Amino acid sequence: MKNSTVEKATASVGIIGFGAFGQLIAKHLNQKFELLAYDPSPHLGEDVSKLGVSLASLDQVAKCDVIIIASPVSSFESVVKSIAAICRPGAIIVDVGSVKVQPSEIMDRFLPEYVSIVATHPLFGPQSACNGIRGLKIAICPIRGHHHIHVAAFLRKYLGLHVIMTTPDQHDRDAATVQGITHLIAKVLLRMEPLPSRMTTKSFDLISEAISMVQHDAPEVFEAIENANPYAKEVRQRFFGLAFELSSNLEDSEEHD
Amino acid sequence: MKNSTVEKATASVGIIGFGAFGQLIAKHLNQKFELLAYDPSPHLGEDVSKLGVSLASLDQVAKCDVIIIASPVSSFESVVKSIAAICRPGAIIVDVGSVKVQPSEIMDRFLPEYVSIVATHPLFGPQSACNGIRGLKIAICPIRGHHHIHVAAFLRKYLGLHVIMTTPDQHDRDAATVQGITHLIAKVLLRMEPLPSRMTTKSFDLISEAISMVQHDAPEVFEAIENANPYAKEVRQRFFGLAFELSSNLEDSEEHD
Repeated sequence: MKNSTVEKATASVGIIGFGAFGQLIAKHLNQKFELLAYDPSPHLGEDVSKLGVSLASLDQVAKCDVIIIASPVSSFESVVKSIAAICRPGAIIVDVGSVKVQPSEIMDRFLPEYVSIVATHPLFGPQSACNGIRGLKIAICPIRGHHHIHVAAFLRKYLGLHVIMTTPDQHDRDAATVQGITHLIAKVLLRMEPLPSRMTTKSFDLISEAISMVQHDAPEVFEAIENANPYAKEVRQRFFGLAFELSSNLEDSEEHD
Repeated sequence: MKNSTVEKATASVGIIGFGAFGQLIAKHLNQKFELLAYDPSPHLGEDVSKLGVSLASLDQVAKCDVIIIASPVSSFESVVKSIAAICRPGAIIVDVGSVKVQPSEIMDRFLPEYVSIVATHPLFGPQSACNGIRGLKIAICPIRGHHHIHVAAFLRKYLGLHVIMTTPDQHDRDAATVQGITHLIAKVLLRMEPLPSRMTTKSFDLISEAISMVQHDAPEVFEAIENANPYAKEVRQRFFGLAFELSSNLEDSEEHD
């Protein structure tokens, strides 16, 4: 650990799903908490040992004071069901996925009454966090209990994040545009590569930078953003509808020239 | 003028078309040259007098040592024909439009043999130039004569621009993507307003910033980029084709879930 003089809090934090994002969480919490991590994949990166976590069984991780679920959306429900019978009274269950309506409903339905539930969405990925996370945004949706207040205070004070309190529904409405459109544009432009890099405008450079920030996101992230967000399809169809309309107008105006 | 101690060069510079971009040119050249400007519109902004230019007739402007054509693409050919009979031997004719193949052909066809022709495309607009132009890019295509060397040296040394030497054809190929795609995305997203501004990611913020840089561009700029660039239609159709394909894949994958 980088700084052994920092006194660790007594709370234990368990991370379920130790992919790129789970590892990013560990990197930012390992000086403050005893961290346990569980991942079903046997192929974890070699750097895991440097992250200050102990790899553990799902059973052990599910008994922590705070449990952070960082699994892909596809296995989210089965993870929640697995930990439901194990987690202890007073535990705080936190998720970090890109959509909030479905996961919140799943957690609320399957987790026992004696746990608190806080749904979160860090509005950044390993790429945008590479220069630190201070000032970056995180959305928080209180689902059950009042522990969202402590989670929010910790994220603000200790990690310097900009906390946005919202509801799962409002989150997914906004994210359908914010993430849905960004990833659509990125997917399309990545298929058009190589893109010009020399003769460019400032605005094109900004779009290129935006693309580079999401292009290494796991395929599950795109899948979640486009298919697990109930508003994504509507936004996508509006985007493509307007694009098609604009395209037709341009071809028409050309014919009349 | 801001700094009357700067000695003016003996060359006279005439600007034809005194809209937003013509005025931007004046702002950056008025300490170095005697500037004359001509615009067919009687409605010039009140700030024109502060720009250090004298408004003049087309006849007077076309007799300058350097003539910069900053007219919309739609009136470009008629402007070139008008000055062809007036401009003096040794004059340097420069254009600044967003496309280069067509305007270069028009200048080469109609301007007398005794003038030099340098086609340019400053890769910025009044919006992106609001904090100064040092370090911004400008494409230069030598069309006739060797004066592009002097123009390039001046732009580099005096204005601090990053000069990119290219050909009209290569310029339009690159610009079809760089500007065509940026403006298409901007047009579509502006029609989707209001866009989220609170719960956003860094990459979405970059795309929003890109849009804000082009949203106040004159309609003629969009028109030129999309219709006067011979490669724009192809790039546009590729973009929309890939977008449509992606959209179909997403709706399909949803049905199979």
